[in-house]
Amino acid sequence: MVKNKKQKGSDAERELIHAFWKMGWAAVRVAGSGSMKYPSPDIVASNALRRLAIECKAVGEDKKYLTQQEIEQLTEFAQKFGAEPWLAIRFDNENWYFFSLDDLRNTKGNNYALDLLLAKQKGLLFEEVLGIFKQEKLKL
Amino acid sequence: MVKNKKQKGSDAERELIHAFWKMGWAAVRVAGSGSMKYPSPDIVASNALRRLAIECKAVGEDKKYLTQQEIEQLTEFAQKFGAEPWLAIRFDNENWYFFSLDDLRNTKGNNYALDLLLAKQKGLLFEEVLGIFKQEKLKL
Repeated sequence: MVKNKKQKGSDAERELIHAFWKMGWAAVRVAGSGSMKYPSPDIVASNALRRLAIECKAVGEDKKYLTQQEIEQLTEFAQKFGAEPWLAIRFDNENWYFFSLDDLRNTKGNNYALDLLLAKQKGLLFEEVLGIFKQEKLKL
Repeated sequence: MVKNKKQKGSDAERELIHAFWKMGWAAVRVAGSGSMKYPSPDIVASNALRRLAIECKAVGEDKKYLTQQEIEQLTEFAQKFGAEPWLAIRFDNENWYFFSLDDLRNTKGNNYALDLLLAKQKGLLFEEVLGIFKQEKLKL
């Protein structure tokens, strides 16, 4: 069960890595992000102009709780590295939804509870985070 | 033997990770850099102003040969990510020496053979790569 969960997490991260490279970005999975004492995200991606530090959650449950510590560590890393901090969450059979940390803070105070409804309301799609939809809108 | 070599490489990478954080940089080890089809370095580090993509070699032998492919992949990743490509090499009981790819090219044509003497002649120390010695010199 634990191993399956871990495997599920790794597979989900690889899925995002593929998506980034497909869009011309460079992206890497971070090794043993839990095993060293430093804050670190699951994925670091860049297109040489923007850098993203991403914490990934692939969940089977209806709701996902995030700890204050997870958010703080992502913030700390992103600040030091000079990257935008993002939380990416994927509920089973759904798209990835991306949250900026400000949106997380505004939704549930210090609780950081996320469910699919909230993700659909407040989350951004992968292409939106990369600014692809935005550009198309500007063309109209 | 293979496992020992791999372990030695991981330990050496962790050593550099610690050094970066100690200097106020954020640094991560890249997961399974060989297992996905994308070019990726062993370490990505940043202080929000500069970003470094580092290929690490910790070697027991007197001489280390690098393949053309390793150099090309490092170059490709660094370009896409917007990072400086560096090769870091540490011979047993010696300091880390850093090479920019230009210096590698100039030394041995397409062979990329590195030994300790060359490292001491042409390589930069960790602090030099981070610009610490430079700043001290400017103060005089």
